[in-house]
Amino acid sequence: MSEFAHRMETMAGTAEVVKNLFAALGDPELISLGIGAPASEALPVDIVREITNDVLRLDTRGIEALQYGPVMGVKDLREVVAEQLLAPKGVKTDADHIMITVGGLEAISLTCQLFINPGDVILVESPTFVHAVETFEMFEARCIGVRMDDDGMEVEDLENKIRQYHPKMIYTIPTFQNPTGRTLSQARRKRVAELSAMYDVLVLEDDPYRDIRYSGEDLLPIKSFDTTGNVILGNSFSKIFSAGSRIGYIVGNDRVMEMLQRAKTASNSQTSMLPQIQCAEFFKRGYYEKHHKLICDLYRERRDVMMECLDKYFPEGTKHTRPDGGLFTWAELPGGLNTTELLKEAVSRKDVKVSYIAGEKFFTDGERITNCMRISFGAVPPDKIRIATERLGRMFCSKL
Amino acid sequence: MSEFAHRMETMAGTAEVVKNLFAALGDPELISLGIGAPASEALPVDIVREITNDVLRLDTRGIEALQYGPVMGVKDLREVVAEQLLAPKGVKTDADHIMITVGGLEAISLTCQLFINPGDVILVESPTFVHAVETFEMFEARCIGVRMDDDGMEVEDLENKIRQYHPKMIYTIPTFQNPTGRTLSQARRKRVAELSAMYDVLVLEDDPYRDIRYSGEDLLPIKSFDTTGNVILGNSFSKIFSAGSRIGYIVGNDRVMEMLQRAKTASNSQTSMLPQIQCAEFFKRGYYEKHHKLICDLYRERRDVMMECLDKYFPEGTKHTRPDGGLFTWAELPGGLNTTELLKEAVSRKDVKVSYIAGEKFFTDGERITNCMRISFGAVPPDKIRIATERLGRMFCSKL
Repeated sequence: MSEFAHRMETMAGTAEVVKNLFAALGDPELISLGIGAPASEALPVDIVREITNDVLRLDTRGIEALQYGPVMGVKDLREVVAEQLLAPKGVKTDADHIMITVGGLEAISLTCQLFINPGDVILVESPTFVHAVETFEMFEARCIGVRMDDDGMEVEDLENKIRQYHPKMIYTIPTFQNPTGRTLSQARRKRVAELSAMYDVLVLEDDPYRDIRYSGEDLLPIKSFDTTGNVILGNSFSKIFSAGSRIGYIVGNDRVMEMLQRAKTASNSQTSMLPQIQCAEFFKRGYYEKHHKLICDLYRERRDVMMECLDKYFPEGTKHTRPDGGLFTWAELPGGLNTTELLKEAVSRKDVKVSYIAGEKFFTDGERITNCMRISFGAVPPDKIRIATERLGRMFCSKL
Repeated sequence: MSEFAHRMETMAGTAEVVKNLFAALGDPELISLGIGAPASEALPVDIVREITNDVLRLDTRGIEALQYGPVMGVKDLREVVAEQLLAPKGVKTDADHIMITVGGLEAISLTCQLFINPGDVILVESPTFVHAVETFEMFEARCIGVRMDDDGMEVEDLENKIRQYHPKMIYTIPTFQNPTGRTLSQARRKRVAELSAMYDVLVLEDDPYRDIRYSGEDLLPIKSFDTTGNVILGNSFSKIFSAGSRIGYIVGNDRVMEMLQRAKTASNSQTSMLPQIQCAEFFKRGYYEKHHKLICDLYRERRDVMMECLDKYFPEGTKHTRPDGGLFTWAELPGGLNTTELLKEAVSRKDVKVSYIAGEKFFTDGERITNCMRISFGAVPPDKIRIATERLGRMFCSKL
């Protein structure tokens, strides 16, 4: 049979992570601290049904929902993004500079489609989001990690690596980062935009967790400091509305939007209509404010329980982040414990049966630190967080 | 600002066609014979609302609809495809060898993602579907046209061009082809599969119109003659269920499916859940049979009116296809009339105000024939077909 294209050969590495993630969704006995999905309790099922009942009629938006629509996406959803989600965060734009994508991930893949040639260097946080790396691999880019501390990407290391590698793009998840839960400080956000202008490097700001902030002070997106058009903002409705709807968006200047329309048309022509309409109406009818409070309360409680339990049950000397939002924390275990090796035991032992994501997978180059793990609390009810961390903690302690 | 990737530079040509297509959707005075969309009357708005009311509940499929789901797509929809759409057409497969895509167009772009390297040759029908060519251009392929007659692609010319160009892939729309409405004969379907095996060339069989057959005898897909796995079948629910849902599917062997999962994950991770569930339930609850009869009756009437009017109003010597299904016919005008040049006049003249797609755009290489046009009748009510063809015909006659 015919050979696959070159790009597919570079992609073997990360796909298994995905399979494991989704396989874990199926086993009812396992408690998964691995899934990055939103909580089922955070999905507005009844509201979406109510909206749909109203819009899916011949005299309302029924034909629009089932007919071909604009490549850019449904206009009132793009207006909602500009007015309700971006303007309050200091990003001045309008519906003509926002494209609706198939989830936040398509914002990443379309940006690559537009800009990435084989061999281009992309600077990423170390560690970073596995699926983004997989996309970069499909476009045959070379990912180079930038060091992080508690304030996110270290901008001195970023500048050094810009000089050393002449990257095409910097990829960052500035707020409640996946996998670490860390947030890039305001000063560094400004600096990233400055470096982008100074060295003419693109920034892809991927910010799907920013609107799930349940403590601390809000920060401005990197895009709000953009003076050149080099900063492209991608985001998703998966965490604040519905993950299954697969809607996200991408914000850029005229030049980017013109090319995006070509790439989107050639990829899948447009995003599904009904999910876009449902989401637009969710915001326009004023459901978001109340729902947002509900999900922030839900995740804050889970974060608090997770922090308490990690401190209580995990081995002494464990370090972990204390995120002000989002769905994850990142733990570093003491005593040379290897989270990759221990995962199989954690999942299969009858007195544990807990999954997590071993940290090693999130490093793209250089040193792959083996004592780290991503721990999700967003989709796990508090009582299960207690059980899972106690069991995992006991197992880890027994290995020291 | 940063430069675009090489692949975007090759794409300038066809994008304007798309813009014009969608712009035409907006003008209420214009009668569009250009749009390839299904008829509004063929969209099952009330049925989909009824289904949604039932499935979008916490105790039914509500969480599934709004949560992340499988990369391959919703399982019962894949079973519907295998059992209700493919088995009756002689294609033996199962849910594990079908991936749900974002419309039929994503089946094309994912196939390219898997197989097409820059510079690869793709053989296409001459003329062929503009959007597919745009996708092939994004993957930096070179498109070479294969001659057609009333039985579709000429297989002798196909074999000659396989020998001459060593293509990676043959792209064909075998049934009620876009733009011509022509159908590849059964004998030729078998021959295309044989050539694919003999020369180890992929075939992408794109078959979105096949299920809208309203006269003549059903034919087996090329995929049903596939002995090597070289034939990949893409299809869409846009014409038989809903275009706005953006759901299609792709059928391939184990090796293709494994790679597809990687490419899909890296592109947008999965197709929207609710449209998939709505479509699966539409078939499982038995709505399809009645709906299918309704849309076939609708399109047959429009086809009949269009054939009658073309014979009556278009200049003597006009040739046009008489499709047994689908949404288009293809006309060749006599006397050196240039459809590209006449389009502007047809759209803007107050006593005409009719749009169509000039045929020249559908040719990818070599001779671009200028006296042809794609005429859509699917989305146009019969009275408007009469008015539009009479006006257009009068204008064309006046130029001779």
